[in-house]
Amino acid sequence: MRVASFTIAGTASYGIVTDRGVVDAGKRLKAFPTLKTLLAKGSLDELKKLADQPDYALQDVTLLPTVPDPDKIFCIGVNYATHLAESGHPTPAHPMIFTRFANSQVGSGQPMIRPLESERFDYEGEMAVVIGKGGRRISRDAAFRHVAGYACYNDGSIRDWQRHTSQFAPGKNFAGTGGFGPWMVTTDELTDISKQTLITRLNGVEVQKAPISDLVFDVPALIAYCSTFTELAPGDVIVTGTTGGVGAYRNPPLWMKGGDVVEIEISGIGILRNPVKDEMPATATRAA
Amino acid sequence: MRVASFTIAGTASYGIVTDRGVVDAGKRLKAFPTLKTLLAKGSLDELKKLADQPDYALQDVTLLPTVPDPDKIFCIGVNYATHLAESGHPTPAHPMIFTRFANSQVGSGQPMIRPLESERFDYEGEMAVVIGKGGRRISRDAAFRHVAGYACYNDGSIRDWQRHTSQFAPGKNFAGTGGFGPWMVTTDELTDISKQTLITRLNGVEVQKAPISDLVFDVPALIAYCSTFTELAPGDVIVTGTTGGVGAYRNPPLWMKGGDVVEIEISGIGILRNPVKDEMPATATRAA
Repeated sequence: MRVASFTIAGTASYGIVTDRGVVDAGKRLKAFPTLKTLLAKGSLDELKKLADQPDYALQDVTLLPTVPDPDKIFCIGVNYATHLAESGHPTPAHPMIFTRFANSQVGSGQPMIRPLESERFDYEGEMAVVIGKGGRRISRDAAFRHVAGYACYNDGSIRDWQRHTSQFAPGKNFAGTGGFGPWMVTTDELTDISKQTLITRLNGVEVQKAPISDLVFDVPALIAYCSTFTELAPGDVIVTGTTGGVGAYRNPPLWMKGGDVVEIEISGIGILRNPVKDEMPATATRAA
Repeated sequence: MRVASFTIAGTASYGIVTDRGVVDAGKRLKAFPTLKTLLAKGSLDELKKLADQPDYALQDVTLLPTVPDPDKIFCIGVNYATHLAESGHPTPAHPMIFTRFANSQVGSGQPMIRPLESERFDYEGEMAVVIGKGGRRISRDAAFRHVAGYACYNDGSIRDWQRHTSQFAPGKNFAGTGGFGPWMVTTDELTDISKQTLITRLNGVEVQKAPISDLVFDVPALIAYCSTFTELAPGDVIVTGTTGGVGAYRNPPLWMKGGDVVEIEISGIGILRNPVKDEMPATATRAA
């Protein structure tokens, strides 16, 4: 199943995306108003029981981040050999973990925002794991049983703010910089994520490509590591790291700017596509 | 006012702590079941209208983290000259920001947990700012109007996991490592936080002491910086950094262990006191 969060006529919901349209699960399953609440009850299979009769055409809904409100978003740094090489990082002995806040995310089709404060807005095509069943100290052997599905993620980065200090959080949390979607594909359908391929395109030009099997720390290793220091909850997201070809390490550097279109495609999942928008001084959010 | 979150007879609530006891605001203000919901409505002053008749003795409630469920917890690294010196960090040009998840927090009186995975459990006495009014790109001049109050924080750190890679998150997010409380004191009562003094004691011995005025980046600077990259929300917490004297830089190092008692005291606020407990293999949380 392809499971998406969306708004329709201003109301947030979620449901199944089929070739014929979108089945609105939020309005049918009153006990589970959001994907996170459905996952928390271990009720993903409820979706299979819904009628295959679509409520909307896909183009009539506004896609939200696949999980709009995760408790935790773990991002993994330098987790592909090619990105290790270009960034000059040594191969880490442990996964490099930083975090995003949920309010930095946008769904497929929504603009990714280059903020006023920077002209160094970079793409990072990644595969995201959505946790279905929570837990602490999950073993590698058990890890896949804790996965609900997989999605595309663009871990958009404000490179100068990322390097203000040793800690990445400021450059990884600007509003509208984290593309997440277009939906997750559940593990019954996508049984071996390591056999899939990740591609990033900027304005139609391929800028990143790697097989998911190139991950330095694979999905079980990441789940085992993260769940050692914190209890994973349903709806948590692990964004597994980007591969070689980011804009910052090109010569000359390649930055995203207003009018661009950036796509992250993973075979077996689909395409996360976001227009890029320059934040304008007149429209920038400022506290009164 | 001293405003605390707590449980009483298994029910979570919050209220005012006076010299005569605890006034339960959660049960009186049905529209605001938690401190975060009260702050979100800009209704902190509602607390002043409540009868001064306490519902419970302070010792009868179990204190929770002052805000148990913040959307965001910003932690500031190396923000005192003495800690910069002992850690060998250069004075940063920008605040160093890393994050905590809410589930790493405990209230005053609750045990702080040394996990199975480490024997390097360190204290970090800090002053925490609780955001009352949210906003993006808050100016330094306006910053104090966005503060609801101040509390003590123990940014307890698993030092070896903090240094697994360049990113601190794993060492700063183990369950039960972030002490927060015992309550916040509102800004009408604590009008100048910079005049207060922070002291950390381990088993009654003073191990850290600094005036809050020693902060490299003060409260307005931190609010301005953080709100530039993300929109602050009511209930968000900025943990402003620790001072010299942490255990990791002592010779020999000083680690917290089961049976210890650690206190963070800030003048004008009170004492955050936590016993330290060693996690035992038989009781450790593990996923099935």
